[in-house]
Amino acid sequence: MRQLPDDRPVIAAAFGEARGLAEVVIATGGLGPTHDDLTREGLADALGEVLTPDPSLESELRERFVAYGRMPESNLRQAMLIPSAEALANPIGSAPGWWVDRDGVVIVLLPGVPSEMHLMWSEQAVPRVEARFSLRPLHVRTVKTFGIGESAAAEAVGDLLEEPGDAVLAGIYARDDGVHLRFSTRGDPSLLDAPVARALLALDEHVWGGDDDDLGTVALSALGAAGARTVASWEADTAGALLAILAAAASDAPAARFVGGVLDAGGATATPAADAVIQASLVPMDAHGRSRVRVSVSGIVTMPRSELRIHGSGPQRLRRAAFAALDQVRRAFRS
Amino acid sequence: MRQLPDDRPVIAAAFGEARGLAEVVIATGGLGPTHDDLTREGLADALGEVLTPDPSLESELRERFVAYGRMPESNLRQAMLIPSAEALANPIGSAPGWWVDRDGVVIVLLPGVPSEMHLMWSEQAVPRVEARFSLRPLHVRTVKTFGIGESAAAEAVGDLLEEPGDAVLAGIYARDDGVHLRFSTRGDPSLLDAPVARALLALDEHVWGGDDDDLGTVALSALGAAGARTVASWEADTAGALLAILAAAASDAPAARFVGGVLDAGGATATPAADAVIQASLVPMDAHGRSRVRVSVSGIVTMPRSELRIHGSGPQRLRRAAFAALDQVRRAFRS
Repeated sequence: MRQLPDDRPVIAAAFGEARGLAEVVIATGGLGPTHDDLTREGLADALGEVLTPDPSLESELRERFVAYGRMPESNLRQAMLIPSAEALANPIGSAPGWWVDRDGVVIVLLPGVPSEMHLMWSEQAVPRVEARFSLRPLHVRTVKTFGIGESAAAEAVGDLLEEPGDAVLAGIYARDDGVHLRFSTRGDPSLLDAPVARALLALDEHVWGGDDDDLGTVALSALGAAGARTVASWEADTAGALLAILAAAASDAPAARFVGGVLDAGGATATPAADAVIQASLVPMDAHGRSRVRVSVSGIVTMPRSELRIHGSGPQRLRRAAFAALDQVRRAFRS
Repeated sequence: MRQLPDDRPVIAAAFGEARGLAEVVIATGGLGPTHDDLTREGLADALGEVLTPDPSLESELRERFVAYGRMPESNLRQAMLIPSAEALANPIGSAPGWWVDRDGVVIVLLPGVPSEMHLMWSEQAVPRVEARFSLRPLHVRTVKTFGIGESAAAEAVGDLLEEPGDAVLAGIYARDDGVHLRFSTRGDPSLLDAPVARALLALDEHVWGGDDDDLGTVALSALGAAGARTVASWEADTAGALLAILAAAASDAPAARFVGGVLDAGGATATPAADAVIQASLVPMDAHGRSRVRVSVSGIVTMPRSELRIHGSGPQRLRRAAFAALDQVRRAFRS
């Protein structure tokens, strides 16, 4: 991976070099309308092709701007193509992507805006790359834990990360919601059963879920199984990290429903009404820079107050505190 | 910039190549305790030096782990040094950085954890690099706007971005809190006065601040100037984006004090008590994927309800909605 400055000859040289090294080259960003968006120009130079406005892209772009009033003329640059390029539609932004397949090398240009890039990558680029190179699908299984450090988790699973099995790749990642172990294969998906089973056995009560699970939904499900139909939150000194996670929770049945949350910053003390109220507050850092979070649950479903150590620092610390609270709820109510 | 896989020979080759291209090489990440943290090993190979445990780093590391119980033996790798390397202390994590100055090239290794990397970069690496290369300080001024798109802002300032003046660099960036124009120089700081003045004139009422200003504090200051001593927030369908921004606001005097916020997710409807309550709720997307945010202020300081268009998509949309609400408050109460 390479990050490049907004410099046309540098971008052109990088495309030239990348074409000699790989069968697929992916570039993100630099497709905007301003003078420093030079990815299209750099690629055109690298391929010795000329940029010309594409009439159908231009009319789509003008259409898009009808709702906004006048289109700045600079946006017209987003309607440019080269002969080898096919436009990739951008359903949520103004910059189309490019799909270029020349001399045996595929080059994909995607916008830098993360939501546009992710959507166009998964919906348009991945299926085309898989079809173009006849790839077998990638199977991925993830084991998600909380309450164990990255090195302790790696030690607990023995040589599993170095030797996850034939045709299986393994990785370990420290995230705000805990340490994740990820196993993947382009072979038969059953190849992942054994390493996942070994990880579950070794990491035991630290495991809170896998794959697409999120800790907010897991905690809401535990409270739902314990009899709560509604859950609210109250928090202090966390900048709303707890309610943000709960609001984003997938909240499938039979999970309890999250109905709202309060951040108390020294005045708004009304406690929300729900079958279970998760209460979390940050304890100030001690002299060694260590923090704790106090967590309890009150209502018709209760959990006594406990204090948990938080690892991590900076703004990340607030999300870690919220996940520590939710993991404690998960542990208290698991069936 | 280059991102590398966890592969020792690839990392070694990249360090070898970078040493031939630059006077300063900065690498982040790969300093953790697990088998796939290979930056130290890659650099040692590139320089033909041997890793040995450093007694003082080892005792610091063991000290750090006293509070956590037993230290996993794998953490000992974080106490390794090569003869050319000097350790950079990590006040908030277990991985020290490295400062290597050999054959006229400086190589800096920093941890990948963002909070640790940023702290060690600004407190330890930057002063050393500036001293080592006798650099003149970099002066930066930023103009921050909301309510104007990136291409419209670039058009409004004419040729300012292409020709910001002698020894001045200019850039334009679309952020969640609006479009920022950034001017920098290593010459006299007064060189930035003219381009900043031109930007302020051209962007006029869209400008909400500059440099280290944040839109949360700007809105709290506007409400404070209008007579509110306390501010609370109520929001719906935003996952708490508004209260998160207000909780993180710098909140200098004479700004009103943020006392707390409520996220209503369909049940927790108690409105908080304060001199001014900012209320924001997201209007569902229309058929064209466009959203609006409704915003008003009630209490002893009031603003009638208005609806604002939100640009952007995905999770970013929620922060954009919150910033749009705060910008509307700023516009309503500016003096």
